[in-house]
This record gives sequence, structure tokens and C-alpha cells, in this order.
Amino acid sequence: MPSHADRVIDLSSESNTSAAYENHAVAGVNDHVIRISVMTEPYHWHCHPDSDETFLVLEGGLILEFEGESVELLPGHMLTVERGVCHRTRPLGERSVNLTFERADARTEALPAPLGP
Amino acid sequence: MPSHADRVIDLSSESNTSAAYENHAVAGVNDHVIRISVMTEPYHWHCHPDSDETFLVLEGGLILEFEGESVELLPGHMLTVERGVCHRTRPLGERSVNLTFERADARTEALPAPLGP
Repeated sequence: MPSHADRVIDLSSESNTSAAYENHAVAGVNDHVIRISVMTEPYHWHCHPDSDETFLVLEGGLILEFEGESVELLPGHMLTVERGVCHRTRPLGERSVNLTFERADARTEALPAPLGP
Repeated sequence: MPSHADRVIDLSSESNTSAAYENHAVAGVNDHVIRISVMTEPYHWHCHPDSDETFLVLEGGLILEFEGESVELLPGHMLTVERGVCHRTRPLGERSVNLTFERADARTEALPAPLGP
């Protein structure tokens, strides 16, 4: 069995990418997953019908858009999007690094038409 | 219903305490919870028999002790302690601020005798 030290995740390494968009799991917690997202461009409108999703901004800023509202999150800010609430994320500035916490089997439904604040 | 902006959590405010030990929930995600912990002294040895627990260090450093091993975590480091693995946390330096992700109904069993690296 590997030591605990061998399983330490360094988020600065996990976010070290030049890709325009990168998203991958960094930890499994029971039936939930923590993912890291690096984004330089908007993601598409979508909903998770059966899972809440909590965002935590690590670097840069993140704009979370909902129908009728837009929220700006800075490093150290968290926001939980309740299941079924459709949303879109985009970077505030050039680059955003954030964590998300959600069910590992969360389904994602894309929206046929964009919403807007 | 409150706006999404009203529900943004600022972790720097949540960790603003002069208490020697502070731990409280900052977000609920489905049946899981994210808690913030501010510590200036060691916590006691314990296990969570039915939940994994993921640590993410925000400020300072955190020492996670297991039977036979001690791991130092710095800001941006994450480590998942699997269910049933007994552990103890203490600050590396004077003060540690970290997040934990675990089941909201996770049971905690204190150990009758200390373990040690």
C-alpha cells in the first residue's frame, strides 16, 4: 500500500497547463469527487439535475451566471449551486482556477438555448 | 428566495478568529459537508468509520499523523484519508487553516490510546 505522503495532491501542479480549458478529478471522497478546472474561455450553459455543485475559486476570478443573475467570485470565495439550477461559468479576467465538489456520478444536461443575466 | 450573490462564502471571513480551535460547516453539498478548521493546537486521535475525509490546506501548514507515518501539508496540498484510517491533525507552525470534505453524518470515534509515527 502506498504511503499517505505519496498520495498528497499539489493543486499548483494540477493547474499547471497551457490548455484553454482543463478539468480533471483530483480527489474522490466516498461517492463524491473534487475536480480542478482551469479555464480561459466560457463553458456552456448546463444543469446537474441530481447533484449540488460547490465552487471554490483558487486563482483569478470566476463568473457564475444564472438565469437573471451573474455572480463574481474571487479567490477564497465559495458558492453552492443547488441541483437543477442551470448555470454557466467563465473566467473573470484571462484565467480562472477553481475546484468543484459534486457527486461522482452527477449527470450534466446541456441547455438547448442560452440563458442570461 | 435569496440571490446567489447573497450566498457566497468568503473563507477569509470564515477563518477570522482568535480562538485556539475553530471548526464549522461552510457549505452543504448533497449529503456531504465542507468544513473549515482553524487550529493552533493538536486535535485528538480519531477515526471516521464510515466516511472518507479530504483535507485541503488554505493557510499555514498542517501535519497529518497516522499510525507509523506523519505527513506535512502546505497551502494548496490535498490529502484524502480513507474511511477507518485513524489520524490526528496538528498545525505546522503557529496556525493552520484547512478545509475538510466528508459525509455530513460522518461518525467520529476517539481512540482510547494515542498512536504515533
